[in-house]
Amino acid sequence: MAATLAIVGATGAVGTVMIDIINSRPSVPWGDIRLIASARSAGRKIGVRGEPCVVVELTAAAFDGVDIAMFDVPDEISEQWAPVAVARGAVVVDNSAAFRMDPDVPLVVPEVNPADASVRPKGIIANPNCTTLSMMAAVGALHTEFGLTELVVASYQAASGAGRPGVDRLYAELAAVAGKGLGVRGGDIAQALAEAGLPAQSPFPAPLAMNVVPWAGSLRPDGWSSEELKVRNESRKILGIPDLKVSATCVRVPVVTAHALAV
Amino acid sequence: MAATLAIVGATGAVGTVMIDIINSRPSVPWGDIRLIASARSAGRKIGVRGEPCVVVELTAAAFDGVDIAMFDVPDEISEQWAPVAVARGAVVVDNSAAFRMDPDVPLVVPEVNPADASVRPKGIIANPNCTTLSMMAAVGALHTEFGLTELVVASYQAASGAGRPGVDRLYAELAAVAGKGLGVRGGDIAQALAEAGLPAQSPFPAPLAMNVVPWAGSLRPDGWSSEELKVRNESRKILGIPDLKVSATCVRVPVVTAHALAV
Repeated sequence: MAATLAIVGATGAVGTVMIDIINSRPSVPWGDIRLIASARSAGRKIGVRGEPCVVVELTAAAFDGVDIAMFDVPDEISEQWAPVAVARGAVVVDNSAAFRMDPDVPLVVPEVNPADASVRPKGIIANPNCTTLSMMAAVGALHTEFGLTELVVASYQAASGAGRPGVDRLYAELAAVAGKGLGVRGGDIAQALAEAGLPAQSPFPAPLAMNVVPWAGSLRPDGWSSEELKVRNESRKILGIPDLKVSATCVRVPVVTAHALAV
Repeated sequence: MAATLAIVGATGAVGTVMIDIINSRPSVPWGDIRLIASARSAGRKIGVRGEPCVVVELTAAAFDGVDIAMFDVPDEISEQWAPVAVARGAVVVDNSAAFRMDPDVPLVVPEVNPADASVRPKGIIANPNCTTLSMMAAVGALHTEFGLTELVVASYQAASGAGRPGVDRLYAELAAVAGKGLGVRGGDIAQALAEAGLPAQSPFPAPLAMNVVPWAGSLRPDGWSSEELKVRNESRKILGIPDLKVSATCVRVPVVTAHALAV
Protein backbone atom coordinates (compact mmCIF):
# COMPACT_ATOMS: atom_id res chain seq x y z
CA MET A 1 0.00 0.00 0.00
CA ALA A 2 1.38 3.42 -0.92
CA ALA A 3 2.36 5.69 1.99
CA THR A 4 0.34 8.72 3.03
CA LEU A 5 2.49 11.85 3.08
CA ALA A 6 1.85 15.05 5.02
CA ILE A 7 3.64 18.30 4.23
CA VAL A 8 3.65 20.55 7.29
CA GLY A 9 4.28 24.16 6.33
CA ALA A 10 2.83 23.47 2.87
CA THR A 11 2.26 27.13 2.03
CA GLY A 12 5.78 28.28 2.99
CA ALA A 13 8.75 28.82 0.66
CA VAL A 14 10.15 25.31 1.17
CA GLY A 15 6.74 23.61 1.31
CA THR A 16 5.94 25.15 -2.07
CA VAL A 17 9.12 23.67 -3.54
CA MET A 18 8.28 20.26 -2.03
CA ILE A 19 4.92 20.31 -3.81
CA ASP A 20 6.62 21.37 -7.07
CA ILE A 21 8.99 18.39 -6.77
CA ILE A 22 6.13 15.97 -6.09
CA ASN A 23 4.28 17.32 -9.12
CA SER A 24 7.36 16.97 -11.30
CA ARG A 25 7.91 13.32 -10.31
CA PRO A 26 4.62 11.52 -10.93
CA SER A 27 6.35 8.13 -10.89
CA VAL A 28 6.98 8.27 -7.12
CA PRO A 29 4.13 6.15 -5.74
CA TRP A 30 2.75 8.28 -2.93
CA GLY A 31 -0.70 7.45 -1.63
CA ASP A 32 -2.68 10.36 -0.19
CA ILE A 33 -0.91 13.67 0.17
CA ARG A 34 -2.07 15.97 2.93
CA LEU A 35 -1.18 19.65 3.02
CA ILE A 36 -0.96 21.11 6.53
CA ALA A 37 -0.36 24.72 7.54
CA SER A 38 -1.35 27.32 10.12
CA ALA A 39 -5.03 28.26 10.65
CA ARG A 40 -4.36 31.40 8.57
CA SER A 41 -3.61 29.32 5.44
CA ALA A 42 -6.18 26.55 6.04
CA GLY A 43 -8.81 26.31 3.31
CA ARG A 44 -6.50 27.40 0.49
CA LYS A 45 -6.41 25.09 -2.52
CA ILE A 46 -3.08 24.06 -4.07
CA GLY A 47 -2.68 21.83 -7.14
CA VAL A 48 -1.13 18.46 -6.30
CA ARG A 49 -0.66 15.85 -9.07
CA GLY A 50 -3.26 17.63 -11.18
CA GLU A 51 -5.95 17.85 -8.51
CA PRO A 52 -6.81 20.76 -6.20
CA CYS A 53 -5.85 19.88 -2.63
CA VAL A 54 -7.31 21.80 0.33
CA VAL A 55 -4.82 22.92 2.99
CA VAL A 56 -5.86 21.73 6.47
CA GLU A 57 -5.03 23.32 9.81
CA LEU A 58 -2.20 21.98 11.94
CA THR A 59 -3.94 19.91 14.64
CA ALA A 60 -3.30 16.50 16.20
CA ALA A 61 -6.12 14.96 14.17
CA ALA A 62 -4.49 16.17 10.94
CA PHE A 63 -1.86 13.44 11.39
CA ASP A 64 -4.30 10.53 11.67
CA GLY A 65 -3.42 7.96 9.03
CA VAL A 66 -0.22 9.78 8.01
CA ASP A 67 2.83 7.55 7.43
CA ILE A 68 5.45 10.22 6.78
CA ALA A 69 5.23 13.89 7.82
CA MET A 70 7.73 16.32 6.30
CA PHE A 71 8.05 19.43 8.49
CA ASP A 72 9.33 22.76 7.25
CA VAL A 73 8.24 25.22 9.92
CA PRO A 74 10.00 27.37 12.56
CA ASP A 75 11.96 25.53 15.27
CA GLU A 76 9.37 26.08 17.99
CA ILE A 77 6.53 24.71 15.83
CA SER A 78 8.55 21.59 15.04
CA GLU A 79 9.43 21.19 18.70
CA GLN A 80 5.77 21.28 19.67
CA TRP A 81 4.16 19.34 16.83
CA ALA A 82 6.67 16.70 15.68
CA PRO A 83 6.07 14.58 18.82
CA VAL A 84 2.31 14.94 18.27
CA ALA A 85 2.66 13.60 14.72
CA VAL A 86 4.79 10.70 16.00
CA ALA A 87 2.19 9.90 18.69
CA ARG A 88 -0.40 9.65 15.91
CA GLY A 89 1.78 7.11 14.07
CA ALA A 90 3.80 9.17 11.61
CA VAL A 91 7.54 9.18 11.01
CA VAL A 92 8.62 12.81 11.02
CA VAL A 93 11.33 14.24 8.73
CA ASP A 94 12.14 17.63 10.19
CA ASN A 95 13.92 20.48 8.39
CA SER A 96 14.18 22.75 11.45
CA ALA A 97 17.06 23.02 13.91
CA ALA A 98 14.90 21.76 16.79
CA PHE A 99 16.12 18.15 16.86
CA ARG A 100 19.34 18.13 14.85
CA MET A 101 21.69 17.76 17.79
CA ASP A 102 19.36 15.53 19.87
CA PRO A 103 21.28 12.26 20.42
CA ASP A 104 18.04 10.30 19.96
CA VAL A 105 17.38 11.86 16.55
CA PRO A 106 19.46 10.79 13.55
CA LEU A 107 20.78 13.64 11.35
CA VAL A 108 20.68 12.27 7.82
CA VAL A 109 21.97 13.17 4.38
CA PRO A 110 20.79 10.39 2.04
CA GLU A 111 24.03 10.37 0.03
CA VAL A 112 26.19 10.06 3.18
CA ASN A 113 24.57 8.21 6.09
CA PRO A 114 21.24 6.73 4.92
CA ALA A 115 21.45 3.81 7.36
CA ASP A 116 21.26 6.22 10.32
CA ALA A 117 17.63 6.93 9.38
CA SER A 118 16.52 3.47 10.47
CA VAL A 119 17.45 4.03 14.13
CA ARG A 120 15.08 6.75 15.38
CA PRO A 121 14.08 6.33 19.05
CA LYS A 122 11.84 9.40 18.90
CA GLY A 123 10.32 8.64 15.51
CA ILE A 124 11.99 11.77 14.13
CA ILE A 125 14.67 12.13 11.44
CA ALA A 126 16.37 15.53 11.13
CA ASN A 127 18.14 16.98 8.12
CA PRO A 128 20.95 19.53 8.34
CA ASN A 129 20.94 23.25 7.68
CA CYS A 130 21.45 24.14 4.03
CA THR A 131 25.06 25.33 4.38
CA THR A 132 26.14 21.98 5.83
CA LEU A 133 23.90 20.02 3.48
CA SER A 134 25.33 21.59 0.33
CA MET A 135 28.83 20.30 1.03
CA MET A 136 28.05 16.92 2.60
CA ALA A 137 27.68 14.90 -0.61
CA ALA A 138 31.19 15.93 -1.71
CA VAL A 139 32.84 15.91 1.72
CA GLY A 140 31.19 12.60 2.65
CA ALA A 141 32.55 10.92 -0.49
CA LEU A 142 36.04 12.29 0.18
CA HIS A 143 35.85 11.09 3.80
CA THR A 144 34.88 7.58 2.70
CA GLU A 145 37.84 7.45 0.32
CA PHE A 146 40.57 9.26 2.27
CA GLY A 147 39.46 9.75 5.90
CA LEU A 148 38.77 13.32 6.90
CA THR A 149 40.92 14.84 9.66
CA GLU A 150 40.21 18.56 9.30
CA LEU A 151 37.62 20.70 7.54
CA VAL A 152 38.24 24.34 6.63
CA VAL A 153 35.22 25.86 4.91
CA ALA A 154 34.07 29.31 3.83
CA SER A 155 30.46 29.93 2.86
CA TYR A 156 28.81 32.33 0.42
CA GLN A 157 25.24 32.40 1.82
CA ALA A 158 22.21 33.94 0.18
CA ALA A 159 19.82 36.48 1.69
CA SER A 160 17.10 33.81 1.59
CA GLY A 161 18.88 32.07 4.49
CA ALA A 162 17.37 34.88 6.58
CA GLY A 163 13.92 33.99 5.22
CA ARG A 164 11.45 36.18 3.37
CA PRO A 165 12.46 39.30 5.40
CA GLY A 166 16.05 38.77 4.23
CA VAL A 167 15.04 38.52 0.56
CA ASP A 168 12.78 41.57 0.81
CA ARG A 169 15.53 43.58 2.47
CA LEU A 170 18.08 42.72 -0.22
CA TYR A 171 15.69 43.72 -3.01
CA ALA A 172 14.86 46.99 -1.23
CA GLU A 173 18.57 47.74 -0.76
CA LEU A 174 19.39 46.95 -4.39
CA ALA A 175 16.60 49.24 -5.56
CA ALA A 176 17.97 51.99 -3.30
CA VAL A 177 21.52 51.80 -4.67
CA ALA A 178 20.77 50.93 -8.31
CA GLY A 179 19.81 54.47 -9.32
CA LYS A 180 23.04 55.85 -7.86
CA GLY A 181 25.16 54.44 -10.68
CA LEU A 182 28.88 55.00 -10.49
CA GLY A 183 28.58 57.26 -7.46
CA VAL A 184 28.16 54.37 -5.04
CA ARG A 185 31.39 53.64 -3.18
CA GLY A 186 32.03 51.99 0.19
CA GLY A 187 30.36 53.96 3.00
CA ASP A 188 28.08 55.61 0.42
CA ILE A 189 25.92 52.48 0.47
CA ALA A 190 24.68 53.05 4.02
CA GLN A 191 23.94 56.66 3.11
CA ALA A 192 22.01 55.65 -0.04
CA LEU A 193 19.88 53.26 2.05
CA ALA A 194 19.11 56.00 4.57
CA GLU A 195 18.24 58.47 1.80
CA ALA A 196 15.88 55.92 0.24
CA GLY A 197 14.06 55.77 3.56
CA LEU A 198 14.97 52.17 4.45
CA PRO A 199 14.65 51.44 8.18
CA ALA A 200 17.95 50.98 10.04
CA GLN A 201 16.49 47.73 11.41
CA SER A 202 17.54 44.89 9.08
CA PRO A 203 17.85 41.09 9.14
CA PHE A 204 21.58 41.68 8.44
CA PRO A 205 24.12 43.44 10.67
CA ALA A 206 25.32 45.68 7.80
CA PRO A 207 24.14 46.76 4.35
CA LEU A 208 24.11 43.69 2.08
CA ALA A 209 23.62 45.30 -1.34
CA MET A 210 27.05 45.64 -3.00
CA ASN A 211 28.65 44.21 0.13
CA VAL A 212 29.61 40.93 1.77
CA VAL A 213 28.87 40.50 5.48
CA PRO A 214 31.10 38.02 7.32
CA TRP A 215 28.52 37.33 9.99
CA ALA A 216 25.40 35.14 9.90
CA GLY A 217 23.35 34.30 12.96
CA SER A 218 23.98 35.16 16.59
CA LEU A 219 27.17 35.41 18.68
CA ARG A 220 28.23 32.18 20.36
CA PRO A 221 31.10 31.19 22.69
CA ASP A 222 34.70 31.72 21.50
CA GLY A 223 33.58 34.27 18.90
CA TRP A 224 31.88 31.83 16.52
CA SER A 225 28.54 32.69 14.94
CA SER A 226 25.57 30.35 15.33
CA GLU A 227 25.78 29.49 11.59
CA GLU A 228 29.44 28.52 11.96
CA LEU A 229 28.71 26.28 14.93
CA LYS A 230 25.87 24.58 13.01
CA VAL A 231 28.35 23.72 10.26
CA ARG A 232 30.81 22.33 12.82
CA ASN A 233 28.39 20.35 14.96
CA GLU A 234 26.18 19.01 12.17
CA SER A 235 29.19 17.98 10.04
CA ARG A 236 30.62 16.02 12.97
CA LYS A 237 27.33 14.22 13.58
CA ILE A 238 26.57 13.37 9.94
CA LEU A 239 30.09 12.14 9.21
CA GLY A 240 30.32 10.29 12.54
CA ILE A 241 33.58 12.07 13.55
CA PRO A 242 32.79 13.62 16.94
CA ASP A 243 36.19 15.30 17.32
CA LEU A 244 36.60 16.54 13.74
CA LYS A 245 38.48 19.83 13.63
CA VAL A 246 36.26 22.30 11.80
CA SER A 247 36.99 25.94 10.98
CA ALA A 248 34.00 27.57 9.30
CA THR A 249 33.67 31.17 8.11
CA CYS A 250 30.04 31.93 7.24
CA VAL A 251 29.55 34.95 5.00
CA ARG A 252 26.35 36.53 3.71
CA VAL A 253 26.52 37.64 0.04
CA PRO A 254 24.05 39.81 -1.94
CA VAL A 255 22.38 36.90 -3.71
CA VAL A 256 18.81 35.67 -3.39
CA THR A 257 18.76 31.90 -3.64
CA ALA A 258 22.11 30.37 -4.51
CA HIS A 259 24.50 28.98 -1.93
CA ALA A 260 28.16 28.28 -2.50
CA LEU A 261 31.00 26.94 -0.43
CA ALA A 262 34.78 26.89 -0.66
CA VAL A 263 36.00 23.76 1.16
CA MET B 1 67.55 66.44 0.94
CA ALA B 2 63.95 65.29 0.41
CA ALA B 3 63.41 62.61 -2.25
CA THR B 4 61.82 63.32 -5.61
CA LEU B 5 58.85 61.04 -6.24
CA ALA B 6 57.32 60.07 -9.57
CA ILE B 7 53.86 58.54 -9.87
CA VAL B 8 53.61 56.60 -13.12
CA GLY B 9 50.00 56.06 -14.09
CA ALA B 10 49.01 59.19 -12.15
CA THR B 11 45.64 59.60 -13.85
CA GLY B 12 44.52 55.98 -13.30
CA ALA B 13 42.31 54.66 -10.51
CA VAL B 14 45.22 53.71 -8.23
CA GLY B 15 47.35 56.74 -9.18
CA THR B 16 44.45 58.97 -8.15
CA VAL B 17 44.32 57.30 -4.74
CA MET B 18 48.10 57.69 -4.35
CA ILE B 19 47.76 61.44 -4.92
CA ASP B 20 44.86 61.58 -2.43
CA ILE B 21 47.04 59.88 0.17
CA ILE B 22 49.94 62.26 -0.43
CA ASN B 23 47.58 65.22 -0.10
CA SER B 24 46.14 63.84 3.14
CA ARG B 25 49.60 63.38 4.72
CA PRO B 26 51.38 66.73 4.42
CA SER B 27 53.89 65.75 7.11
CA VAL B 28 55.64 63.19 4.84
CA PRO B 29 58.65 65.19 3.60
CA TRP B 30 58.60 64.51 -0.15
CA GLY B 31 60.64 66.83 -2.37
CA ASP B 32 59.33 67.31 -5.90
CA ILE B 33 56.43 65.16 -7.00
CA ARG B 34 56.20 64.35 -10.68
CA LEU B 35 53.00 63.02 -12.25
CA ILE B 36 53.61 60.77 -15.27
CA ALA B 37 51.02 59.22 -17.59
CA SER B 38 50.39 58.31 -21.22
CA ALA B 39 50.55 60.97 -23.97
CA ARG B 40 46.74 61.07 -23.92
CA SER B 41 46.69 62.38 -20.33
CA ALA B 42 49.78 64.61 -20.56
CA GLY B 43 49.05 68.30 -19.96
CA ARG B 44 46.24 67.68 -17.47
CA LYS B 45 46.56 69.54 -14.18
CA ILE B 46 45.99 67.73 -10.87
CA GLY B 47 46.15 69.35 -7.43
CA VAL B 48 49.11 68.08 -5.37
CA ARG B 49 49.73 69.51 -1.90
CA GLY B 50 47.65 72.56 -2.75
CA GLU B 51 49.36 73.38 -6.06
CA PRO B 52 48.30 72.45 -9.60
CA CYS B 53 50.72 69.89 -11.02
CA VAL B 54 50.96 69.26 -14.78
CA VAL B 55 50.96 65.61 -15.88
CA VAL B 56 53.96 64.82 -18.09
CA GLU B 57 54.24 62.13 -20.74
CA LEU B 58 55.93 58.82 -20.00
CA THR B 59 59.39 59.15 -21.59
CA ALA B 60 62.91 58.28 -20.45
CA ALA B 61 63.66 61.94 -19.72
CA ALA B 62 60.66 62.10 -17.39
CA PHE B 63 62.68 60.07 -14.87
CA ASP B 64 65.69 62.40 -14.74
CA GLY B 65 66.29 63.40 -11.13
CA VAL B 66 63.63 61.01 -9.80
CA ASP B 67 64.63 59.08 -6.65
CA ILE B 68 61.58 56.84 -6.30
CA ALA B 69 59.12 55.95 -9.08
CA MET B 70 55.82 54.30 -8.09
CA PHE B 71 54.33 52.43 -11.06
CA ASP B 72 50.68 51.55 -11.35
CA VAL B 73 50.25 50.68 -15.01
CA PRO B 74 49.49 47.51 -17.03
CA ASP B 75 52.08 44.71 -16.85
CA GLU B 76 53.53 45.37 -20.29
CA ILE B 77 54.06 49.07 -19.57
CA SER B 78 55.87 48.25 -16.33
CA GLU B 79 57.95 45.64 -18.10
CA GLN B 80 59.07 48.19 -20.69
CA TRP B 81 59.49 51.31 -18.57
CA ALA B 82 60.61 50.21 -15.10
CA PRO B 83 64.13 49.34 -16.36
CA VAL B 84 64.25 52.74 -18.11
CA ALA B 85 63.44 54.52 -14.84
CA VAL B 86 66.12 52.48 -13.05
CA ALA B 87 68.68 53.34 -15.76
CA ARG B 88 67.93 57.01 -15.09
CA GLY B 89 68.68 56.53 -11.39
CA ALA B 90 65.29 55.84 -9.82
CA VAL B 91 64.27 53.03 -7.48
CA VAL B 92 61.04 51.57 -8.89
CA VAL B 93 58.16 50.33 -6.73
CA ASP B 94 55.94 48.37 -9.11
CA ASN B 95 52.31 47.44 -8.53
CA SER B 96 51.97 45.26 -11.66
CA ALA B 97 52.51 41.51 -11.97
CA ALA B 98 55.47 41.98 -14.34
CA PHE B 99 58.28 41.44 -11.82
CA ARG B 100 56.62 39.81 -8.80
CA MET B 101 58.05 36.35 -9.35
CA ASP B 102 61.42 37.54 -10.73
CA PRO B 103 64.08 36.11 -8.36
CA ASP B 104 66.07 39.35 -8.69
CA VAL B 105 63.11 41.49 -7.58
CA PRO B 106 62.01 41.47 -3.92
CA LEU B 107 58.26 41.13 -3.31
CA VAL B 108 57.58 43.26 -0.27
CA VAL B 109 54.78 43.87 2.22
CA PRO B 110 56.09 46.51 4.66
CA GLU B 111 54.44 44.85 7.70
CA VAL B 112 55.94 41.43 6.86
CA ASN B 113 59.31 41.52 5.08
CA PRO B 114 60.53 45.15 4.94
CA ALA B 115 64.21 44.10 4.98
CA ASP B 116 63.80 42.35 1.62
CA ALA B 117 63.38 45.78 0.00
CA SER B 118 67.04 46.62 0.55
CA VAL B 119 68.32 43.83 -1.73
CA ARG B 120 67.15 44.76 -5.23
CA PRO B 121 69.60 43.73 -7.95
CA LYS B 122 67.41 45.23 -10.68
CA GLY B 123 66.56 48.39 -8.78
CA ILE B 124 62.93 47.27 -8.69
CA ILE B 125 60.71 46.40 -5.70
CA ALA B 126 57.40 44.65 -6.44
CA ASN B 127 54.30 44.53 -4.31
CA PRO B 128 51.77 41.70 -4.37
CA ASN B 129 48.33 41.51 -5.93
CA CYS B 130 45.58 42.88 -3.72
CA THR B 131 44.12 39.50 -2.72
CA THR B 132 47.45 38.33 -1.34
CA LEU B 133 48.26 41.73 0.14
CA SER B 134 45.05 41.97 2.13
CA MET B 135 45.84 38.86 4.17
CA MET B 136 49.62 39.18 4.53
CA ALA B 137 49.69 41.48 7.57
CA ALA B 138 47.60 38.98 9.56
CA VAL B 139 49.10 35.80 8.12
CA GLY B 140 52.66 37.17 8.44
CA ALA B 141 52.17 37.94 12.13
CA LEU B 142 50.73 34.47 12.74
CA HIS B 143 53.64 32.89 10.88
CA THR B 144 56.19 34.79 13.01
CA GLU B 145 54.49 33.59 16.18
CA PHE B 146 53.49 30.03 15.31
CA GLY B 147 55.21 28.95 12.06
CA LEU B 148 52.88 28.48 9.13
CA THR B 149 52.66 25.00 7.55
CA GLU B 150 49.51 25.24 5.45
CA LEU B 151 47.29 28.03 4.16
CA VAL B 152 43.66 27.46 3.14
CA VAL B 153 42.07 30.67 1.91
CA ALA B 154 38.85 31.71 0.19
CA SER B 155 38.49 35.15 -1.37
CA TYR B 156 35.54 37.47 -1.88
CA GLN B 157 36.86 39.68 -4.70
CA ALA B 158 35.28 42.85 -6.02
CA ALA B 159 34.40 43.65 -9.61
CA SER B 160 37.08 46.37 -9.54
CA GLY B 161 39.70 43.63 -9.62
CA ALA B 162 38.74 43.36 -13.29
CA GLY B 163 39.41 47.09 -13.70
CA ARG B 164 37.07 49.79 -14.90
CA PRO B 165 35.34 47.41 -17.39
CA GLY B 166 34.51 45.12 -14.47
CA VAL B 167 32.99 47.94 -12.43
CA ASP B 168 30.99 49.25 -15.40
CA ARG B 169 29.69 45.77 -16.15
CA LEU B 170 28.52 45.20 -12.58
CA TYR B 171 26.66 48.52 -12.48
CA ALA B 172 25.01 47.78 -15.84
CA GLU B 173 23.96 44.32 -14.64
CA LEU B 174 22.57 45.67 -11.35
CA ALA B 175 20.56 48.28 -13.25
CA ALA B 176 19.19 45.54 -15.51
CA VAL B 177 17.98 43.34 -12.65
CA ALA B 178 16.95 46.03 -10.15
CA GLY B 179 13.64 46.82 -11.85
CA LYS B 180 12.68 43.13 -11.89
CA GLY B 181 11.93 43.07 -8.16
CA LEU B 182 10.93 39.78 -6.63
CA GLY B 183 10.70 38.06 -10.00
CA VAL B 184 14.44 37.57 -10.30
CA ARG B 185 15.43 34.01 -9.47
CA GLY B 186 18.44 31.94 -10.55
CA GLY B 187 18.59 31.58 -14.32
CA ASP B 188 16.28 34.60 -14.65
CA ILE B 189 19.31 36.83 -14.14
CA ALA B 190 20.91 35.89 -17.48
CA GLN B 191 17.56 36.46 -19.15
CA ALA B 192 17.12 39.89 -17.53
CA LEU B 193 20.58 40.92 -18.76
CA ALA B 194 19.77 39.82 -22.31
CA GLU B 195 16.41 41.63 -22.23
CA ALA B 196 18.15 44.82 -21.04
CA GLY B 197 20.36 44.60 -24.13
CA LEU B 198 23.65 43.91 -22.34
CA PRO B 199 26.27 42.30 -24.59
CA ALA B 200 27.02 38.64 -23.91
CA GLN B 201 30.72 39.60 -23.82
CA SER B 202 31.66 40.39 -20.20
CA PRO B 203 34.80 40.65 -18.05
CA PHE B 204 33.26 37.84 -15.99
CA PRO B 205 32.49 34.27 -17.08
CA ALA B 206 28.91 34.46 -15.74
CA PRO B 207 26.42 37.12 -14.63
CA LEU B 208 27.81 38.80 -11.50
CA ALA B 209 24.76 40.78 -10.32
CA MET B 210 22.98 38.76 -7.60
CA ASN B 211 25.50 35.98 -8.12
CA VAL B 212 28.92 34.81 -6.97
CA VAL B 213 31.36 33.51 -9.58
CA PRO B 214 33.96 31.04 -8.32
CA TRP B 215 36.43 31.87 -11.08
CA ALA B 216 38.77 34.86 -11.46
CA GLY B 217 41.44 35.07 -14.13
CA SER B 218 42.52 32.49 -16.69
CA LEU B 219 42.79 28.68 -16.56
CA ARG B 220 46.18 27.37 -15.41
CA PRO B 221 47.67 23.87 -14.95
CA ASP B 222 45.94 21.44 -12.59
CA GLY B 223 42.68 23.38 -12.79
CA TRP B 224 43.78 26.42 -10.77
CA SER B 225 42.86 29.92 -11.90
CA SER B 226 45.57 32.54 -12.44
CA GLU B 227 44.30 34.46 -9.39
CA GLU B 228 44.60 31.36 -7.23
CA LEU B 229 48.17 30.74 -8.39
CA LYS B 230 49.10 34.36 -7.67
CA VAL B 231 47.92 33.88 -4.08
CA ARG B 232 49.95 30.67 -3.78
CA ASN B 233 53.18 31.86 -5.40
CA GLU B 234 53.24 35.36 -3.95
CA SER B 235 52.41 34.15 -0.41
CA ARG B 236 55.31 31.67 -0.60
CA LYS B 237 57.74 34.37 -1.74
CA ILE B 238 56.68 37.07 0.76
CA LEU B 239 56.67 34.68 3.73
CA GLY B 240 59.90 33.00 2.61
CA ILE B 241 58.35 29.50 2.67
CA PRO B 242 58.98 28.12 -0.84
CA ASP B 243 57.16 24.82 -0.23
CA LEU B 244 54.18 26.21 1.71
CA LYS B 245 51.04 24.20 0.99
CA VAL B 246 48.44 26.68 -0.26
CA SER B 247 44.85 25.96 -1.27
CA ALA B 248 43.17 29.11 -2.58
CA THR B 249 39.62 29.50 -3.87
CA CYS B 250 39.20 32.87 -5.58
CA VAL B 251 35.61 34.02 -5.96
CA ARG B 252 34.22 37.15 -7.59
CA VAL B 253 31.34 38.78 -5.65
CA PRO B 254 28.95 41.57 -6.77
CA VAL B 255 30.75 44.33 -4.91
CA VAL B 256 32.61 47.33 -6.32
CA THR B 257 35.62 48.05 -4.15
CA ALA B 258 35.79 45.95 -1.01
CA HIS B 259 37.86 42.79 -0.76
CA ALA B 260 37.48 40.14 1.88
CA LEU B 261 39.16 36.87 2.71
CA ALA B 262 38.39 33.85 4.84
CA VAL B 263 41.72 32.33 5.96
